[in-house]
Amino acid sequence: MMNKELPAQWEGFKTGLWTSSVNVRDFIQKNYTPYEGDSSFLAGPTDNTKALWDEVLDLFKQEREKDGVLDMDTKIPSTIVSHGAAYLKNGKETIVGFQTDKPLKRAFMPFGGIRTAVTACKSYGYEVDQELIDIFTNWRKTHNQGVFEIYTPEMRAARHAHIITGLPDAYGRGRIIGDYRRVALYGVDRLIQDKQEQHASVVGDMTADICRLREELADQISALKDLKKLANIYGYDISQPASDVKEAIQWTYFGYLAAVKEQNGAAMSLGRTSTFLDIYAERDLASGKYTEEQIQEFIDHFIMKLRMVRFARIPEYNALFAGDPTWVTESLGGIGIDGRSMVTKMSYRYLNTLDNLGTSPEPNMTVLWSTRLPENWKKYCAEMSIKTSSIQYENDDMMRVTHGDDYAIACCVSSMRVGKEMQFFGARANLAKCLLYAINGGVDEKLGEQIGPKYRPITSEYLDFDEVMEKFHDMMEWLAGLYVETLNCIHYMHDKYCYEKLQMALHDRDVHRWFATGIAGLSVVADSLSAIKYAKVKTVRNEQGIVVDYEIEGDFPKYGNNDDRVDQLAVDLVNDFMNMIRKHPTYRGAVPTTSILTITSNVAYGKNTGSTPDGRKAGVPLAPGANPMHGRDSHGAVASLASVSKLPFGNAQDGISNTFSIIPNALGKDSTVFMGDLDLDRLGKE
Amino acid sequence: MMNKELPAQWEGFKTGLWTSSVNVRDFIQKNYTPYEGDSSFLAGPTDNTKALWDEVLDLFKQEREKDGVLDMDTKIPSTIVSHGAAYLKNGKETIVGFQTDKPLKRAFMPFGGIRTAVTACKSYGYEVDQELIDIFTNWRKTHNQGVFEIYTPEMRAARHAHIITGLPDAYGRGRIIGDYRRVALYGVDRLIQDKQEQHASVVGDMTADICRLREELADQISALKDLKKLANIYGYDISQPASDVKEAIQWTYFGYLAAVKEQNGAAMSLGRTSTFLDIYAERDLASGKYTEEQIQEFIDHFIMKLRMVRFARIPEYNALFAGDPTWVTESLGGIGIDGRSMVTKMSYRYLNTLDNLGTSPEPNMTVLWSTRLPENWKKYCAEMSIKTSSIQYENDDMMRVTHGDDYAIACCVSSMRVGKEMQFFGARANLAKCLLYAINGGVDEKLGEQIGPKYRPITSEYLDFDEVMEKFHDMMEWLAGLYVETLNCIHYMHDKYCYEKLQMALHDRDVHRWFATGIAGLSVVADSLSAIKYAKVKTVRNEQGIVVDYEIEGDFPKYGNNDDRVDQLAVDLVNDFMNMIRKHPTYRGAVPTTSILTITSNVAYGKNTGSTPDGRKAGVPLAPGANPMHGRDSHGAVASLASVSKLPFGNAQDGISNTFSIIPNALGKDSTVFMGDLDLDRLGKE
Repeated sequence: MMNKELPAQWEGFKTGLWTSSVNVRDFIQKNYTPYEGDSSFLAGPTDNTKALWDEVLDLFKQEREKDGVLDMDTKIPSTIVSHGAAYLKNGKETIVGFQTDKPLKRAFMPFGGIRTAVTACKSYGYEVDQELIDIFTNWRKTHNQGVFEIYTPEMRAARHAHIITGLPDAYGRGRIIGDYRRVALYGVDRLIQDKQEQHASVVGDMTADICRLREELADQISALKDLKKLANIYGYDISQPASDVKEAIQWTYFGYLAAVKEQNGAAMSLGRTSTFLDIYAERDLASGKYTEEQIQEFIDHFIMKLRMVRFARIPEYNALFAGDPTWVTESLGGIGIDGRSMVTKMSYRYLNTLDNLGTSPEPNMTVLWSTRLPENWKKYCAEMSIKTSSIQYENDDMMRVTHGDDYAIACCVSSMRVGKEMQFFGARANLAKCLLYAINGGVDEKLGEQIGPKYRPITSEYLDFDEVMEKFHDMMEWLAGLYVETLNCIHYMHDKYCYEKLQMALHDRDVHRWFATGIAGLSVVADSLSAIKYAKVKTVRNEQGIVVDYEIEGDFPKYGNNDDRVDQLAVDLVNDFMNMIRKHPTYRGAVPTTSILTITSNVAYGKNTGSTPDGRKAGVPLAPGANPMHGRDSHGAVASLASVSKLPFGNAQDGISNTFSIIPNALGKDSTVFMGDLDLDRLGKE
Repeated sequence: MMNKELPAQWEGFKTGLWTSSVNVRDFIQKNYTPYEGDSSFLAGPTDNTKALWDEVLDLFKQEREKDGVLDMDTKIPSTIVSHGAAYLKNGKETIVGFQTDKPLKRAFMPFGGIRTAVTACKSYGYEVDQELIDIFTNWRKTHNQGVFEIYTPEMRAARHAHIITGLPDAYGRGRIIGDYRRVALYGVDRLIQDKQEQHASVVGDMTADICRLREELADQISALKDLKKLANIYGYDISQPASDVKEAIQWTYFGYLAAVKEQNGAAMSLGRTSTFLDIYAERDLASGKYTEEQIQEFIDHFIMKLRMVRFARIPEYNALFAGDPTWVTESLGGIGIDGRSMVTKMSYRYLNTLDNLGTSPEPNMTVLWSTRLPENWKKYCAEMSIKTSSIQYENDDMMRVTHGDDYAIACCVSSMRVGKEMQFFGARANLAKCLLYAINGGVDEKLGEQIGPKYRPITSEYLDFDEVMEKFHDMMEWLAGLYVETLNCIHYMHDKYCYEKLQMALHDRDVHRWFATGIAGLSVVADSLSAIKYAKVKTVRNEQGIVVDYEIEGDFPKYGNNDDRVDQLAVDLVNDFMNMIRKHPTYRGAVPTTSILTITSNVAYGKNTGSTPDGRKAGVPLAPGANPMHGRDSHGAVASLASVSKLPFGNAQDGISNTFSIIPNALGKDSTVFMGDLDLDRLGKE
């Protein structure tokens, strides 16, 4: 595969598996330098950086003044090579590249759905050329059109009633992280060669599966060729490996830039780049090629660019997330499987941008937390968290077991090995609503329409635990099946009409696919079942005979107090639902997972969910993620956390979130993790 | 499914299965009137028809003067509704509708392949808008691009060497007949309703197969909606059934017109419409609504339109077929499975257009021949054949066994039940070349390159029958597998990027698919094997050691003389190859068939085939179809036909052709069947 001679750009690197096959992890492990020191080595912003950042702040201001959107493209469907070069201040930026022909100008991305793309423009007063609308209506089908053509009436109804919700059928599924580091380490020519060899290796009977894979590999190769052209537009030749840290950052960014030019994914995460880039920085520092100040400047400019990633989205999207999120998640630190800390100086430099450029939600700096991280790093993270409230923490000790030490987080909690695993994102099933369907025989409590199967409803005045559980299980079985089939439709069409060819070009041939499902309403259901079991719950029916409210007589154990009587109900719920999900074949044999991580959209879910037997009234927000319902965790923080920690990660591997406010004294001031998730039902075709 | 009330348009028709479900055959069987009389009832052309036809002849003249192409569209990709109305002489035509905005102007059809479409235009001096080229290169992939992305190097090599040849990878596969009669009998609204019910019926696990079928049904529904719009453009509402014979012809033609606006298939055949339309004619004659003269005028104008169907194709295509064929094949007559003749007055009226408008290769009038046809019809066919040389005959007694009595011919010999069966067309494998590969260990005798597998070549000076047979079988096994996999690639991509949605909308939900393969060089191989077995064949090698010629010592039995010694070799060849084909899984579970019907392209195949052990020299044409090699059938016509008739139709169900010159006395003057087939290797992407 390789020339005998190693590329000159690799001089000084320890060779290994990575020299003869694409293997970034091996390169990192062989070459990185753990850093146990403190933050005193860090450099502040250069004058150049300050001047540039002032430009950016001015643009941000203009953007806010224009309702959050500075400019939109309405003429050119975005592709990797659709636009010429654009600069903030040409010659001043050490790292270059924008998505369109102007900073913050949002690209027109119709492949996911022409209606969504046009609506996004319309919302801000931009009109898309009619000719483009015609092309993407008559000649080029989009993901959104494909999905709605094959949805069954039952799927449309469940979507309409919001029992299945937030489906990526009108927006990009995201949750795929290209291994952008490969561009820097190998150069694009080598990656093309690798993909050509993969293409040649997919042979045998030309079944539809083989045809699809061969076509995808061909598309990946053409995306890599376009990636080279993109760099060329900016005057760079990235066919060969990067030769220093500046090039390594630029090459990596070109890979990422190509991805965000091609895809408007709900989460376009960056991966785990800092330790990788640190290897180049250490080499350049040692050789005297660059100073600490210069390297920090490169990183500042890189991060600046990441803060300026924009997508054309509808205003409701922004309202829901309070800030137009792009989920440029970068995973920092963590511990290697050989026990060494993976924290490097570069990990510090990334967080240092929060000082140099000020606080920011993007890129989503995510610290992979381990008890065994170096003390200095822990302290620096805590300090920066207090100062900026801009850091997310995730449990490396838990995720490393499954994913090893070269995984990263996509979006907020979805962990995957970089370049080896990807996720078919699947939003959520509302289990609180499912419980109400069980009670009302599939009739939606808000719409008064038959949405679920016409099972026998509960007719008694008081709810009987065994009867409710039996009916709830039947209804969950229905929901799990419908949910998986709906996602199968979506991912079939996403692959067909909106394939992430550049991102997948930066993956191995045989990718492990996670089939992500999600649960909403966990604590509401647990508490409801507890109320039915341990108190007396009386049904209140409307004139139609539908149960629309509940009266509780007596007290009952509540989730969030480390009380096994109810916590076990929550645990069983996760296990049962996951096992029901697993009964159904998934698109491309993807491995089912579940997440419990609704974080901001729990408000919307609550709005669409009637009163529940736990005493929660119709319209009241559900608790976020796996949180106890607000105010019910009366036994203190530790008991509350204890309840959450009982949930089986093995059956909710896509993530369990607990939104948690730390009392001021702990870290110095109020700090919450920054999280969010996606629920865009309104974008559909109904 | 149906309203209780039958549509007024059906008054006077005998009801049956056809009234409650889409079933044209049942309608025909319940309602048609066999005609045993002679041709004396036929009407000549009206003055209106003559005037119109003069217009057409003038256009044909202009077309010939412009190198065979009058005008080409270079701005609008053709869809069902892409163009406004066009007329020959508005108000004079009783049947209306053209493919573009001007008669004989060829539509721009890029979905099969942008390169082919652009090349076709360029060949005649037309330039396609660069913008369109960009759209169909960057945003909308075509069939041709898809296929070449997934071809293996081996497939490309086999195609380049012409051992597999004529593949529909750069042109539409054709060989699909929409049941255009359904449009007339049911009206489009009912057909849409039927398709909606089918869409609703495809449920269960959303596997890729189910997703594909649901999407196709949705596409079919949208095509039917477009079909209504197309009629509207011409001022017709075809949502309801046709109410008389004029409407029935017009509705049927709109269905066909939509198909040829959407698809540039290699063969766009019409089906079996005459007996169906006769039912309307009989009703109108009985009620006095129309006279015989009027009805003949409608048919004349219908046929006039069919003669004006045009596609943009490259000049080589026209040169090969001497006349720009469209294969608008109409199947006439035949015998019903209840024993009644299906010849009607309308069958006569169709042939009568050859008198009224003069002779023409299109539409390809094909008489389904049975010994039991009415004598008058046989005589009339013979008379018209002698007069016009424009009639094709096919064996109804043989095909009826497999296909019943509502099949039709697509292209020249491919039989299929109308609306129930379709064919994945697959061109041909050159078995003569395969034999040479067996001898030369997979090295191509013309190119000197290794194309086939590196099996051991024959090294002896004289060929040994058993050794040759063993190696030939091994090489055939390789060829059969490669051939099937190549076709799998093609049909996967054709469905994906160039799906025949209007034609398939006029099919049942569960279509029977034939996977058509084809054999070229049958008689050459049979004679070669016979020479090796019964004479002595000495190899002549070039300096490379490749056998490039053969010297035969002694005589040997030759195929075409009713000599079982060699005829059996041909029979075995067909059986063996078909069984090898059957070993490989086919796309969508299509049922493999083979044809032996190279009719004009045998010249091209011969050009690409080196000298063969039967004494045929390099470059000499192969015999067409299943014909004996020219001049070798020395025992008279009957013996020659006897040899051909031994070939097992069950293993060559897609057709066996025998091009046969009848001596003048038999029918009055020279007459040959009109046939042809497709070989367009040059259009590829190599």
